[in-house]
Amino acid sequence: MIRNQPTFYSLREIVEQLGGEIVGNPDVRVRQVATLANAGPDTITFLANERYLRHLSAARAAAVIVGPAMRDATDKPRIVCANPYAYFAQVSELLNPPRRAQPGTHATAVVDPSAMVAEDAEVGPLVTIGRCSRIGARSRIGAGSVVGEQVTVGEDVLMHANVTIYDGCVIGNRVILHSGAVIGADGFGIAMTEERWLKVPQIGRVVIGDDVEIGANTTIDRGAIDDTVIEEGVKLDNQIQIAHNVRVGAHTAIAACAGVAGSAKIGRHCRIGGASGIAGHLTIADHVEISTHTLITKSIDKPGVYTGAYPFDTNREWRRNAVQLRHLKDLADRIRALEQTLAPPERSKP
Amino acid sequence: MIRNQPTFYSLREIVEQLGGEIVGNPDVRVRQVATLANAGPDTITFLANERYLRHLSAARAAAVIVGPAMRDATDKPRIVCANPYAYFAQVSELLNPPRRAQPGTHATAVVDPSAMVAEDAEVGPLVTIGRCSRIGARSRIGAGSVVGEQVTVGEDVLMHANVTIYDGCVIGNRVILHSGAVIGADGFGIAMTEERWLKVPQIGRVVIGDDVEIGANTTIDRGAIDDTVIEEGVKLDNQIQIAHNVRVGAHTAIAACAGVAGSAKIGRHCRIGGASGIAGHLTIADHVEISTHTLITKSIDKPGVYTGAYPFDTNREWRRNAVQLRHLKDLADRIRALEQTLAPPERSKP
Amino acid sequence: MIRNQPTFYSLREIVEQLGGEIVGNPDVRVRQVATLANAGPDTITFLANERYLRHLSAARAAAVIVGPAMRDATDKPRIVCANPYAYFAQVSELLNPPRRAQPGTHATAVVDPSAMVAEDAEVGPLVTIGRCSRIGARSRIGAGSVVGEQVTVGEDVLMHANVTIYDGCVIGNRVILHSGAVIGADGFGIAMTEERWLKVPQIGRVVIGDDVEIGANTTIDRGAIDDTVIEEGVKLDNQIQIAHNVRVGAHTAIAACAGVAGSAKIGRHCRIGGASGIAGHLTIADHVEISTHTLITKSIDKPGVYTGAYPFDTNREWRRNAVQLRHLKDLADRIRALEQTLAPPERSKP
Repeated sequence: MIRNQPTFYSLREIVEQLGGEIVGNPDVRVRQVATLANAGPDTITFLANERYLRHLSAARAAAVIVGPAMRDATDKPRIVCANPYAYFAQVSELLNPPRRAQPGTHATAVVDPSAMVAEDAEVGPLVTIGRCSRIGARSRIGAGSVVGEQVTVGEDVLMHANVTIYDGCVIGNRVILHSGAVIGADGFGIAMTEERWLKVPQIGRVVIGDDVEIGANTTIDRGAIDDTVIEEGVKLDNQIQIAHNVRVGAHTAIAACAGVAGSAKIGRHCRIGGASGIAGHLTIADHVEISTHTLITKSIDKPGVYTGAYPFDTNREWRRNAVQLRHLKDLADRIRALEQTLAPPERSKP
Repeated sequence: MIRNQPTFYSLREIVEQLGGEIVGNPDVRVRQVATLANAGPDTITFLANERYLRHLSAARAAAVIVGPAMRDATDKPRIVCANPYAYFAQVSELLNPPRRAQPGTHATAVVDPSAMVAEDAEVGPLVTIGRCSRIGARSRIGAGSVVGEQVTVGEDVLMHANVTIYDGCVIGNRVILHSGAVIGADGFGIAMTEERWLKVPQIGRVVIGDDVEIGANTTIDRGAIDDTVIEEGVKLDNQIQIAHNVRVGAHTAIAACAGVAGSAKIGRHCRIGGASGIAGHLTIADHVEISTHTLITKSIDKPGVYTGAYPFDTNREWRRNAVQLRHLKDLADRIRALEQTLAPPERSKP
Repeated sequence: MIRNQPTFYSLREIVEQLGGEIVGNPDVRVRQVATLANAGPDTITFLANERYLRHLSAARAAAVIVGPAMRDATDKPRIVCANPYAYFAQVSELLNPPRRAQPGTHATAVVDPSAMVAEDAEVGPLVTIGRCSRIGARSRIGAGSVVGEQVTVGEDVLMHANVTIYDGCVIGNRVILHSGAVIGADGFGIAMTEERWLKVPQIGRVVIGDDVEIGANTTIDRGAIDDTVIEEGVKLDNQIQIAHNVRVGAHTAIAACAGVAGSAKIGRHCRIGGASGIAGHLTIADHVEISTHTLITKSIDKPGVYTGAYPFDTNREWRRNAVQLRHLKDLADRIRALEQTLAPPERSKP
C-alpha cells in the first residue's frame, strides 16, 4: 500500500469521532488499517464475518473492529460497533484522508476565458475547460481531463486524470470520476433510410446527482432529446455502459462491465451484478438485485434477486449437456406423450 | 437538453428542404424537436408507432411528423412522410446543425512539422499529431487527442476529445470518433514458446471507410499482418472491441459492449446486439441480426435472427432449474429408455 | 501494413540469428512477413497447419517457415523449425524492429521536479509525471499519458499514448501498456450504512511484473488494503477489468472483455477466454482454460477446460427451446414419475 507520513490515532480518539465502544486498552495507537492476513503492528483490522475468527488470533494487528456478537471472541483491544465494515471504512478515511484541492490552475491548462473556476478549485496540468463551463468550490480536475462547453461541475468533485465531459453535462457535488470515464458522448441514435443509417442528433444532456462515483472507462451517453439521469448516491464501477435516456435511481450500485440499454429506468437501491445487461425501455423496481452475467429482458416490478447465467462445467460435460438445449421442446413433448400413453385419459395432464 | 440560440423554421420551410406533405397550417413555426412526453410550445415531435397515439393529443407540441397511416389521427399541424423517424432525424439536424470546424491549430497543440493539416481543419488544445500524418479539409480534432505517425484522416471528420489513433491508420471522410476510442492498438498476437508468450509484431493497419461512427471507449485493433477493415457506413456504439484482421461489412450496426474476435468477417447490413460476441475466424452473411448477449460460435451463411441468451428468472426458480442443465443428457437418455420400454420395437425412435 | 524503409535478410542471416534449418536456396532474401493469401515477392510466410498447404503453392512468397512434418511439402525455399508460429514471430520482430526510445523529455511534458526520469528514457508531448515518480532506462512514455505520484516505471517499458497510472503503482520491466489503459483506479469498495453507500478508501497499489502486456482500455484497480498483483509474463487483451486485490499468475493470457472480480486468485499459465467472468474471492488452479462467455462461480482446483456459454440458434428455435428452461425441474420430476410408474419398485431409480 502507499505509505504516507503516518498519523497515529488512539482507540479513544477514534471512538470520540466515530462512536462505538472500546473493550481493552483505549490508549492503543494505530496508524493504518490492515487485513487480517497482512496486519502489522500499529494497525487496526476488522472482523465482519465469524468465519475469519480463527485468523484473528494470529493477526498481528494492535486492535480490531468487531460487531456485538464477537465482542468477547478476542482479547485484543477492540472497538465494538453495529456495522464493523462501515466503521472500518470510516477509520480508514480518518487514517487516509483524501488529499485536498490545491487551489489554482496549472500554467499548462487551457481554460476558456468565459469559464468560471472557483478560486479554491484545482485545475491540473494539461486540462482543457471549454466555453461557459463552471467548476465548483474545492473541486479537483485531474491532468489531461477535458471539460467541454457549458458544463457544470459541482463542489468538492474529484475528477481524476484523463476524464472527458461533453458539452452541456451537469455533475453534482462530491462526485468522483475515474480516469477514462466519458460522460455525454452521443447515444446510439440511428435511423435507417434508403439502405443507409442516418444519424439522429443527440441533444439531451447527462445529469449526475450528488455523491455519485463513476469508475474508470465507464461511459454514460447523453440523451437523444431529454436527459440521461444518474441520481444521487449511485455507485458505478469500471467499464459500465449507460445508454441514452437511462435513469438510474438513487443509491443503486452497479458492478463492472454491466450495460444498460436506452431509456431503461432502474429503481433506487438496486444492486446490479457485473457484466449483466438491462434491455432498452424496461423499468426495474426499487431494491432489485440482479446477478452477474444476467440479461434482463422484461421489466421487473417487485424487489428480489434475479438470475440468468449459464452454469459452467468441464467442457466435456458442457458439450454433453448443452447440445440438448436444441432439443428441449422436443424432450418436453416426448415426456407429455409418454404421460398420455401411461395415464388413463381422465388423469392426463392438461 | 442544450439550448442554443434558437432558429425557427416554419413547416413550409422544412418541407421545402426535406420533402413530405403538410396537413394543417404551413406557417406554424418550430425551434426544437421534442418527445411526446416533454414537448413544449414551439416544438415538433413525431409519431412512429400507433401505440403512442393517445399521448399525442396531450402533447403540447406545435406540430408532429406522422406516417401516411396516421395522416388523419390528429388535428395538429403535421408533416406526412414515409419514414417519420428518419424524417425526424433530419428535422433535428436542421434545428441543431453540427458546429463547423473553426479553422486553425490551437497554440498548445503539438503538430509535427512534417504533418499536413488542411487549412480549414480545426486542431484543438493539447492535441498531438505525429510525423507525416494528414488531416483533411474541415475536420475537427478534439482536445487531448493523439494522432500517431503516418495517419490519414479524411475530410469532415469529427474526432472528439481524448481519442487515440496509432501509427499508420486510415480514417475515411465524415467519420465520427467519440472520446476514449482507440484505433490501431496491437492485436492480441502471442505465440507460446518455452513456457513463455512471445509477442507477434502487429504490422497491419486499421482502415476505416467513409461515414463510419465509432463510440466512446471502443477499441479497434490493427491487423497482425494484413489490415483490419471497417467498411463505409458502419455504426459502432460504445465499448465495442474489434480484434485484429476483422472486417465489418458496410452499413452494419453494432450495439454497445459487443466483441468481435480475430479475423471474423461480418457481412453488410447486419445488426449485432449489445454485449454479443463473435468468435474468431467466422464468416457472418449479409443482413444477419444477432441478439443481445449472444455468442456466435459458428459461421452463419444466411440472413435471419440468431439468439443465445439464458432467460432470467427469480434466483430461486433459476436455481431449481439451472441445476438440471448438468443432467440434460441423462434426462434425454432416460426419456428414450422410457419410450423403448413402452413402445413396441418396430415403433421405437431411432 | 505500414511500410517502413525495408531491410533485407537472407534465409542464411535469419537462421544465423534464430536457428532452424534451411532447405533450398539460402541466399533468397526477404524484407517482410506475409500471410499466405497476400504474400508478395520478397516476403516470407509460414505454415503452421496442414490445412492451408494447398494455399502455399499459389502463394507468391519467396520463402516459407514450416514444421518438420511439412519439410518436403513444398519446393519453395524454406526454414524448418520446431514451432513455425513462434519462429515467424521472431522473424517478424527482426524485420520490424520496435522503435527505440529517443532520449529526452518533450518541451510540453509536465514533469515534477522531484520525479526521476532516466537519461535515455523518452517522455512524449503533453505527458504528466507526478511527484517522486521514476521512469526507468530506455522507457517510452506516449503522448498525453499521465503518471501519478510515487509511481515506479521499470526499464524498457512502452507506454502508448493516453495511458493513466494512478499514484503509487509499480510497473515492471519491458511492460507494454496500450492507450486508454487505466492502472490503479479505486476498487469498487463500498459499505452500506443508513441507506447510503460509504466509500471504503482504496489504499493498496497495483504491482505489475516484468514482461506484462496490457491492452487498450483495460482497467486494473488498486487494492483495497493489500495490493492487486499481475505477475510476470501475463498478457491482457483490450477492455479487460481486473478488480481490487486480484492476483493473476505468471504467463496467464486473458482475452478481450473478460472481467475478474475482487480478490480472485488466478493461477499460472491459464488461458481465459474473451468476455468471460470470474467471480470474487475464487481460486483458479494453474493451467486452467476458460472458454469465451463463461462465468466461473466456483473455485477450480484442477487443470482442464471449463465452459458455460449458451449455444446460439435461430431466434425461432431458441424461443421454442429456451422457454423450457423455466420448466426443467418440472420435466425432471415428470421423468422420474414415469420411471416409477413403469418400473417395479425394486428397480426404481434412487
